Amino acid sequence: MTRIAIVGVAGRMGRTLVNAVEQDAEATLAGGIVEPDSSLAGADIGELAGVGKRGVVAVDSLASIADDFDVLIDFTAPQVTLANLAFCAEHGKRIVIGTTGMSDDELKVLDSYRDRVPLVFAPNMSVGVNLTLKLLQTAAKALGDEGYDIEVIESHHRHKVDSPSGTAIKMGEVIAESLGRNLKEHGVFERVGQCGPRTDKEIGFATVRAGDIVGEHTVMFATEGERIEITHKASSRMTFAKGAVRAARWVADKENGSYDMQDVLGLG
Amino acid sequence: MTRIAIVGVAGRMGRTLVNAVEQDAEATLAGGIVEPDSSLAGADIGELAGVGKRGVVAVDSLASIADDFDVLIDFTAPQVTLANLAFCAEHGKRIVIGTTGMSDDELKVLDSYRDRVPLVFAPNMSVGVNLTLKLLQTAAKALGDEGYDIEVIESHHRHKVDSPSGTAIKMGEVIAESLGRNLKEHGVFERVGQCGPRTDKEIGFATVRAGDIVGEHTVMFATEGERIEITHKASSRMTFAKGAVRAARWVADKENGSYDMQDVLGLG
Amino acid sequence: MTRIAIVGVAGRMGRTLVNAVEQDAEATLAGGIVEPDSSLAGADIGELAGVGKRGVVAVDSLASIADDFDVLIDFTAPQVTLANLAFCAEHGKRIVIGTTGMSDDELKVLDSYRDRVPLVFAPNMSVGVNLTLKLLQTAAKALGDEGYDIEVIESHHRHKVDSPSGTAIKMGEVIAESLGRNLKEHGVFERVGQCGPRTDKEIGFATVRAGDIVGEHTVMFATEGERIEITHKASSRMTFAKGAVRAARWVADKENGSYDMQDVLGLG
Amino acid sequence: MTRIAIVGVAGRMGRTLVNAVEQDAEATLAGGIVEPDSSLAGADIGELAGVGKRGVVAVDSLASIADDFDVLIDFTAPQVTLANLAFCAEHGKRIVIGTTGMSDDELKVLDSYRDRVPLVFAPNMSVGVNLTLKLLQTAAKALGDEGYDIEVIESHHRHKVDSPSGTAIKMGEVIAESLGRNLKEHGVFERVGQCGPRTDKEIGFATVRAGDIVGEHTVMFATEGERIEITHKASSRMTFAKGAVRAARWVADKENGSYDMQDVLGLG
Repeated sequence: MTRIAIVGVAGRMGRTLVNAVEQDAEATLAGGIVEPDSSLAGADIGELAGVGKRGVVAVDSLASIADDFDVLIDFTAPQVTLANLAFCAEHGKRIVIGTTGMSDDELKVLDSYRDRVPLVFAPNMSVGVNLTLKLLQTAAKALGDEGYDIEVIESHHRHKVDSPSGTAIKMGEVIAESLGRNLKEHGVFERVGQCGPRTDKEIGFATVRAGDIVGEHTVMFATEGERIEITHKASSRMTFAKGAVRAARWVADKENGSYDMQDVLGLG
Repeated sequence: MTRIAIVGVAGRMGRTLVNAVEQDAEATLAGGIVEPDSSLAGADIGELAGVGKRGVVAVDSLASIADDFDVLIDFTAPQVTLANLAFCAEHGKRIVIGTTGMSDDELKVLDSYRDRVPLVFAPNMSVGVNLTLKLLQTAAKALGDEGYDIEVIESHHRHKVDSPSGTAIKMGEVIAESLGRNLKEHGVFERVGQCGPRTDKEIGFATVRAGDIVGEHTVMFATEGERIEITHKASSRMTFAKGAVRAARWVADKENGSYDMQDVLGLG
Repeated sequence: MTRIAIVGVAGRMGRTLVNAVEQDAEATLAGGIVEPDSSLAGADIGELAGVGKRGVVAVDSLASIADDFDVLIDFTAPQVTLANLAFCAEHGKRIVIGTTGMSDDELKVLDSYRDRVPLVFAPNMSVGVNLTLKLLQTAAKALGDEGYDIEVIESHHRHKVDSPSGTAIKMGEVIAESLGRNLKEHGVFERVGQCGPRTDKEIGFATVRAGDIVGEHTVMFATEGERIEITHKASSRMTFAKGAVRAARWVADKENGSYDMQDVLGLG
Repeated sequence: MTRIAIVGVAGRMGRTLVNAVEQDAEATLAGGIVEPDSSLAGADIGELAGVGKRGVVAVDSLASIADDFDVLIDFTAPQVTLANLAFCAEHGKRIVIGTTGMSDDELKVLDSYRDRVPLVFAPNMSVGVNLTLKLLQTAAKALGDEGYDIEVIESHHRHKVDSPSGTAIKMGEVIAESLGRNLKEHGVFERVGQCGPRTDKEIGFATVRAGDIVGEHTVMFATEGERIEITHKASSRMTFAKGAVRAARWVADKENGSYDMQDVLGLG
């Protein structure tokens, strides 16, 4: 059993992480951290997450539960995460980091810990998205130079402000790289009016924004006679939480090093 | 049984029309026209279409089969069609016209026959597309002002030169009209980069170009909690041929007048 | 503004209803009922629902808020609902009932109120599902006897114990009725092994059970050359809550009578 | 340039193969065989296939074009294929075999040639289907024991007499094998009535039969929070023809041996 502690346990992602640990037969809830001075320090983290009392109370200091856990999961903010990373390196803990928005300098600091602690870092912890990237690489290599047209279609909720999504662009980059193409040159992000026939090497993107769609991505490889479509549909942030718990279990017996989800999934 | 004659019976659409008549239990193949001086005059039109000998030979003059048929189907060129229309008016025949590319003047001539002959005219004879337009009207009226986001997604083969498709735009117009919106104002045809959140009244379009896709259109109505999607997928030009044969059967007992596919389908 | 009170406001459906009222610009939160002796009486119903304090406290008796609301929404249990219905009839209120599991006797009692109170009753309040039923009726009438094969495909989460879903069967019944067919005779619920070619009039059902799928239904009408697909995807119980709030607004100015969602949506 | 000859060039698959060779920049049409005594011997094989005169005439004997081609493509019948295989072995040719329906004895004979000729043999030559099998293997290994439910959904035209399709079963077998499961034990082919909740290890199958669907297969891996779907859609027999031409190009410089499409695609 991997003993897991969760930073930011009172937030939405923190509570989802508690649910994901609960569902995992090989992981156990070992601690939860809330912000200093939070009125929720002392609350049962199971109750906070809506799964019922678990006998583990939220604390506002990592040091106070240092003996209780093996792996820390952190989806918070860059500076908080780097402080927690330093703590884990000093105390022989492991850490799974899903924090986004790190600057280049912060990424360098994070990377400097690769020899001192086993850490998993991924801006998108979804098992399905990471598997999909691998499938796209395999498909692109098998099909790409044989007359298959490649299109990426993504759908998100009405509130999303950028287009295409970061994940759609990442998918395009993985495909382009597999084919020796350059997404900056071959990516086509709009087709309006008399735009002429499709070129062989372009990678097209289409965007849908509507309702409460959490996130759907389809990559189509089409030629005369057939289509292959690889689709990922996220339905809730459990997709990230479950990936993080899987990463925590995986990293529990690894050497010092900086790993990503491809390593966790054995797809590297 | 409706006795049907087909103009341009040696062409691809003509042969498809022969197949569609063959499959219809209430229609029978009564004649086929080829261009004057065609070497195919005299050929069996069943053999031309690959369905086997039917005992009806292609002729190069409508007059020579004037007694044999009830309804003429014409998917040719504007001037040819208008001449055939005049013939039908004079000889008490009916006509189904799928010819595209008519000028405004030609459309006026066509319309001038509405009191002299029962005619069905539709630039897109597909039963499914025409039904879909009706479904969209119903859905838009029921949902449109209740917080449902509307998006049109269309996919076509790699050779298509314009975007979005004429059918996608027609769908958008039907929706906009049902909601008292103006597609010119509310249609959104591209979303690239930091484009901000979706507005309530926009009707978004997304385009896919790949492989041999004959034509697929999906309209999505999405809000928090649910999505309704109405999809049409064409797999061959049989979709147009079958619509034309259905129109021919329908118009066989109608009064003089100019009808469209909404009339044929009883959706008017 | 329609003033709405919610029965069972502390339950999951009750809290979702609070969210749906909050999102509706023409409805306002006017009261919430909890079970007698509930420790939650006195709590702010906005806070119970996670939308923040709204200045409306939960009470355990409908009588105590009789002057505050116009329409009651009730998704509870048959006997509770019938008592609330009696209250509404006596006090000139209106009621929207989403309660399921009524016996034939209870349904008769409910129906006996049709002359005394404006009430909306629907076992499935989803706007999208009810619209879909109407679209299916239109499509079936336009296509059904013209060689289109009809299939119903439904997907639900891994915990669902029956198959096909009640909604899928309802869709099949609406289609069958529109075509003068009998679902008991023409419904095909399994195809395994050497089952032979499809018959013309059968209505096929296919079932998927996987993951956390809330509920997806697609009806396909397919013939040579084209397919029309009408799809409903539920993503959360907000689909039911929003339908109920829409029904409450609609019934606010109606005469005594028993209405359903087809009436609310103007599709009757 | 790989010089390709086609057996059965006057049949539907033969003519499709001519089209596929025409579209391939690295292959050239070098010969076509028709049945002995066929009236089509002597016809131009380009004209037979509808691509225009190519200056290559159909012959009724392989021996007469022995110097003209490098690779033979054969989608005919077992005994014809085995005779052609013997010819290729004797004359230093290569062969691509898409013939189906071989008996165990015939398969043994075929296999006995593996040291005498470079041959590619696959009952389904579709590049997309073979790639899909590889993707399923990768996905199943990454997801299968982590709480993902697996479902196979397949759709075919109304004339198909068996269910599920052979390809759907093959997909299920590849998945089961990747997970150490047994499809005979874990495959679920019907769910009707009160069938109870889904079990963890079952692999479900759902079947759609409608219209002119050439063949569509989707495998879904779903868990709480996300779904991955891998889909193959065939739109015409070009999918098989293009796979065969690709195999012909690939085998043109290989050693003696019996290869399959996984080898051709570099996925072995």
